[in-house]
Amino acid sequence: MQTVSSVAALREVIRQWRCEGRRIAFVPTMGNLHAGHYSLIETAKANADRVVASIYVNPTQFALGEDYGNYPRTLEADQRGLREQGCHLLFAPEDADVYPPEQHGPRASVDLGHLGTSLCGAFRPGHFAGVAQVCARLFHFVEPDVAVFGEKDYQQLLVIRALVQAFAFPLQIIGAPTGRSEEGLALSSRNQYLSDVERERALGVIQALRRAVAEIQQGLPIPEIEERGYHQLAELGFKPDYFAVRRALDLALVGPEDKDLRVLVAARLGKARLIDNLSAIRGKDVIAS
Amino acid sequence: MQTVSSVAALREVIRQWRCEGRRIAFVPTMGNLHAGHYSLIETAKANADRVVASIYVNPTQFALGEDYGNYPRTLEADQRGLREQGCHLLFAPEDADVYPPEQHGPRASVDLGHLGTSLCGAFRPGHFAGVAQVCARLFHFVEPDVAVFGEKDYQQLLVIRALVQAFAFPLQIIGAPTGRSEEGLALSSRNQYLSDVERERALGVIQALRRAVAEIQQGLPIPEIEERGYHQLAELGFKPDYFAVRRALDLALVGPEDKDLRVLVAARLGKARLIDNLSAIRGKDVIAS
Repeated sequence: MQTVSSVAALREVIRQWRCEGRRIAFVPTMGNLHAGHYSLIETAKANADRVVASIYVNPTQFALGEDYGNYPRTLEADQRGLREQGCHLLFAPEDADVYPPEQHGPRASVDLGHLGTSLCGAFRPGHFAGVAQVCARLFHFVEPDVAVFGEKDYQQLLVIRALVQAFAFPLQIIGAPTGRSEEGLALSSRNQYLSDVERERALGVIQALRRAVAEIQQGLPIPEIEERGYHQLAELGFKPDYFAVRRALDLALVGPEDKDLRVLVAARLGKARLIDNLSAIRGKDVIAS
Repeated sequence: MQTVSSVAALREVIRQWRCEGRRIAFVPTMGNLHAGHYSLIETAKANADRVVASIYVNPTQFALGEDYGNYPRTLEADQRGLREQGCHLLFAPEDADVYPPEQHGPRASVDLGHLGTSLCGAFRPGHFAGVAQVCARLFHFVEPDVAVFGEKDYQQLLVIRALVQAFAFPLQIIGAPTGRSEEGLALSSRNQYLSDVERERALGVIQALRRAVAEIQQGLPIPEIEERGYHQLAELGFKPDYFAVRRALDLALVGPEDKDLRVLVAARLGKARLIDNLSAIRGKDVIAS
């Protein structure tokens, strides 16, 4: 596996593959890779001939006071892991490669409407506009046929789908299931901010989500489910940002006809801000019975 | 010259040219082509091996009550003209090719900040977001090496530059000088809305612009110049939307240090809304003397 840091070097490899008729998959990451990322690489391999991963901790998606400076950077271990996983090319740029300093003139950004300002967007101002911008730039650097994003960051996945659809990026977005520990904890680089005791307690997240899914299937009222989930986590010592049930398609508030829902949570535990989500089909049990 | 209407057929031709190592230039238009457009094709030919033009009257850039329905559509004459001009491929899609009807899920749009809401943006709500969206889509359909835009639509040119820069579209934007009649009238499809008498009177636009340029070179105060230009046109029977002097780089208000300026005007005359602009260097005469 080759590692390149400049856009020019990246494009040279990609151009070669294009000429050979290769189908190219892309997995953008912020590094500090774990089994969750490696399952994205697996998905990428299953959908293409060549897999490009990127490692870049994008400053524009961190709000003031967040963990940009402390975000774990472990390039050598990541390179070993990607090589073992069969990734073909790693793009590991510096800030100046992604955002050349000579940029001037008027600015443009992505307006995501409600999708950009609700849920995590409400607690991380500018986060999703930053995500959309860096992904647009990375897509234009790599020009892949497919790109793989984890469902763990469900709102981000919808942001990327909205971006690609609105501007007709010539690539397919694949959402990959959330990697989890045996007990069900969603794999995340931020889990390492947890102490052993907190890590045990963090299982409360998946338990609360599973309970909400069951309650949605039973047709219980959404506001009750949201309140119960929120308080369940608060009682365990979390500081929840939100515990929300939304329409899966676009994270709009659930209307009376909506069946395909998503339960989403963000909650702080010690130094970590954990997010997770599950799919839920409303009234599934009611319909089945 | 071949004409294609589907994105798939377009991509097939482009793919072939890519394999042959051709450099590709793109000239997006709304059709009803005149010598101004053909000079963009000339610029495109000078910068590439293959020239793609598009003709598409994009509904999302027309505000309510504008001339979308009446906009002149003259495909056969345009095809003849493009062929004579040496254009290699015409992309003439239907609405369903550009905006496939199966689109659903959350929306995204381009936020252009002040650039999108000032000058023409103030009088044509949503216009520049629509321009940015359709150009992003067209760029992703054609994937050219360069795209050529006329300076006649100066604010549009800056919008496209902002779009390309923010999202790192892998293409170069070339601005081409405004095509003019011998008397100086900026060539525009909307000139045909003018009667013979109005056409004569329309020369007031370039006269007012030239006067403003001279006054800027002499170092006269900007607000005075703007007011004089506005009234000069109003006295000729125009209904001016604006007559403005701005910083050329980003159309911001002129600061004390700014030298590289642009004079821009939009004014209605009869059924036509005319726009035009000229470059002006502040204090040029003063410095030279």
